Amino acid sequence: MTTLMAIGGAINIEEPAIFEEFIRRAGGKKARILVLPQASSLSNAGSGYSSWLKKLGARAATALEFRDRYQADRSQHLEALRKATGIFITGGVQLRLTSLLGGTKFERELLAAYRRGTVIAGTSAGAAVQSRSMIAEGRRGPTPRQGMAQFSSGFGFTDRILFDQHFRQRDRLGRLIYGVCMNPGALGVGVDENTAAIVEEDRLITVCGKHAITIVDGTSMRATNVPEVTNSHPIAASGLTIHVLTTGCSFDLKTRKAMIPRPALSKA
Amino acid sequence: MTTLMAIGGAINIEEPAIFEEFIRRAGGKKARILVLPQASSLSNAGSGYSSWLKKLGARAATALEFRDRYQADRSQHLEALRKATGIFITGGVQLRLTSLLGGTKFERELLAAYRRGTVIAGTSAGAAVQSRSMIAEGRRGPTPRQGMAQFSSGFGFTDRILFDQHFRQRDRLGRLIYGVCMNPGALGVGVDENTAAIVEEDRLITVCGKHAITIVDGTSMRATNVPEVTNSHPIAASGLTIHVLTTGCSFDLKTRKAMIPRPALSKA
Repeated sequence: MTTLMAIGGAINIEEPAIFEEFIRRAGGKKARILVLPQASSLSNAGSGYSSWLKKLGARAATALEFRDRYQADRSQHLEALRKATGIFITGGVQLRLTSLLGGTKFERELLAAYRRGTVIAGTSAGAAVQSRSMIAEGRRGPTPRQGMAQFSSGFGFTDRILFDQHFRQRDRLGRLIYGVCMNPGALGVGVDENTAAIVEEDRLITVCGKHAITIVDGTSMRATNVPEVTNSHPIAASGLTIHVLTTGCSFDLKTRKAMIPRPALSKA
Repeated sequence: MTTLMAIGGAINIEEPAIFEEFIRRAGGKKARILVLPQASSLSNAGSGYSSWLKKLGARAATALEFRDRYQADRSQHLEALRKATGIFITGGVQLRLTSLLGGTKFERELLAAYRRGTVIAGTSAGAAVQSRSMIAEGRRGPTPRQGMAQFSSGFGFTDRILFDQHFRQRDRLGRLIYGVCMNPGALGVGVDENTAAIVEEDRLITVCGKHAITIVDGTSMRATNVPEVTNSHPIAASGLTIHVLTTGCSFDLKTRKAMIPRPALSKA
């Protein structure tokens, strides 16, 4: 089974539900985690996440620290991708990951690991890169405006979902709606901080964590004027479908329907 | 065999080599061409191309004139895609095509037609949409600069090539290099006006027409500072491989090598 975990950033280590879920899915006590810290500008991002993951029960967790494109395809790096049962991609700047790894053997091996069933988790920038068409950067605000986000090629574990992160904390509904107008074949999924969207088999999304995910489905869109709007003017779009889903809720990409658990009924 | 023809715009009807090549590949006297004029703001774009294509020998050529998203999936439109042996996508604004058709059954049927061997040709905007990560719009100039082009999801007949058009006529080398830094897994192919890049089996590119195509291959890139550059400042990139290819030349996406025909040697 393929599994993606797109985490909205700002994971609270005091509330380890998301990390525990990641380790469980990656094999629990047998989990061998590889950490990719290349998005981060902190020199200890890789070692920090590795030690947390080991404390929380992973058998092994190590970081690949290279930062140069010509080092990506070293055989020990490709071998580490083949051995991992889970891969964790840190936050930072998503273009650092894609400009470092886009078009390399490392990238192909990373996608092959995902297709074999290695669990892919990433937070913030590490969530953004999971999309094929990726939000590279953008501005905040509730109104979609022309050019308020920039797109580029992510690693593309899925081409069916456009992830955004720090979603309600950074007021990003406008840029996600703009993102869906620019990429209407992809489902917009905005993930809040300390919250994860877990995607199984590129089809079933479930929510784990403290806040919510906001889904913008553009397949129902009737019309948009995004091709005609210039500068930073507001964009019109009609017929978008929105879902706000909290922990335990799910969304099926095939049926385009959300499921919100109901309380069990009892006799009076 | 799958075939794409990405034409750089400004086709000269007095020099019909590209159209003749398209009709020949789509079945010659048996060719049934479907024209998609939705990128254009001219009401006669569809009928104009249809009548040229018939004059040049296609058995049939008709345009689908709808411009509303909710009309896309009508059964007669899907049926027309199934019957065509060639599909011609006109110029105009590429986002008009993708915001109209992204995520529709029409789009899926269009991709299925391509995979069955229906020849896909498009000029200008109709070339841009052939890429998965598409150049939606941008500025001219020889220097790559941050944000000088905007990307969005094209129809994605290929995810291995990022097409640009009106290439040398509109001085677009800067934006193509920027495009490759933002999408380094895709080969940048800038197509000049009245010139076509013909792609067979998503692997072999050959050039047809009056001017040239410019290929920017980012897989050899050593480094770029695109993640760190702000505003519209110039971007650095090292180790890109460039090929300028004219009619009769070819490029193999698998070997990453170009072939330039040599004159036959004769005895003195």
